[in-house]
Amino acid sequence: MASTRIREATERDCGDILRMIRELAEYEKLSHQVKISEEALRADGFGENPSFHCLVAEVIPAPGELQGPRVVGLGLYYFIYSTWKGRNIYLEDIYVMPQYRGQGIGTKIIKKVAEVALCKGCSQFRLAVLDWNKKAMDLYKSLGAQDLTELEGWHSFRFEEAAMRELAGW
Amino acid sequence: MASTRIREATERDCGDILRMIRELAEYEKLSHQVKISEEALRADGFGENPSFHCLVAEVIPAPGELQGPRVVGLGLYYFIYSTWKGRNIYLEDIYVMPQYRGQGIGTKIIKKVAEVALCKGCSQFRLAVLDWNKKAMDLYKSLGAQDLTELEGWHSFRFEEAAMRELAGW
Repeated sequence: MASTRIREATERDCGDILRMIRELAEYEKLSHQVKISEEALRADGFGENPSFHCLVAEVIPAPGELQGPRVVGLGLYYFIYSTWKGRNIYLEDIYVMPQYRGQGIGTKIIKKVAEVALCKGCSQFRLAVLDWNKKAMDLYKSLGAQDLTELEGWHSFRFEEAAMRELAGW
Repeated sequence: MASTRIREATERDCGDILRMIRELAEYEKLSHQVKISEEALRADGFGENPSFHCLVAEVIPAPGELQGPRVVGLGLYYFIYSTWKGRNIYLEDIYVMPQYRGQGIGTKIIKKVAEVALCKGCSQFRLAVLDWNKKAMDLYKSLGAQDLTELEGWHSFRFEEAAMRELAGW
């Protein structure tokens, strides 16, 4: 039987990473917002001082199967800074391809992120979930996460480029 | 009359920064969560590869006034990575001391963050607000921000250290 492993992404995974970023945005019904390119991912994540780090979930075929390893999920994160707790991790994207769900791959990715966070001396990691994605919310809660929007009332705000230009007088 | 300027923080501001982080957490009724020290802020924000950047609002006394310049507000941010848009800014904390509110200092800080973001090639910046802090919400909206929790349904989730240890089997 095929098995799954979670490993650090390399530059060569950028095609798969971009494909999954697009699939995830489509699932979130927000794909019109994706402007990133494979080249940008390569430059931003795999040079000196990378802006993000990425884990990929890879299915390793059983001996004798013709197909090679296949990247079927990702966990893309970066370091943030809590003025209460110091350096932490933000899991920007977590994704498993629909046909590979229900096998615990998402949980494996979350576990790996927790391990990386602890290794790096972080005392927490954060992520954001859409409120209609109840399955994801339930999974994260079952793994021990707290919904801070529900518990403490946090709302996410965003200034887009047009607003920023207006503010900066550009 | 005294005037206010927004400038980049230096290592010498860490005492003021910590004081204001504590005041802000108290205002947010979450001050029990503050574990950071002045030494940590100094090491994390002002060494090589800083984990955050900080703007401070400083009141410059009018000529003849006896008091020196006074740090009365802050905007603490870091760079994050949107898989849709690339490198962006997250404004982790924005704060103005109560007795200096209503003078447009918060708006000045937001404007400066927008300017920094544009200079660094970012196409957006994000921040989080507590839902009972209607004054702050209204200010950000009036400056052009969108409430993504309201508009798209984003919820903030957090895994704390105990949950991470459980997940990582530590």
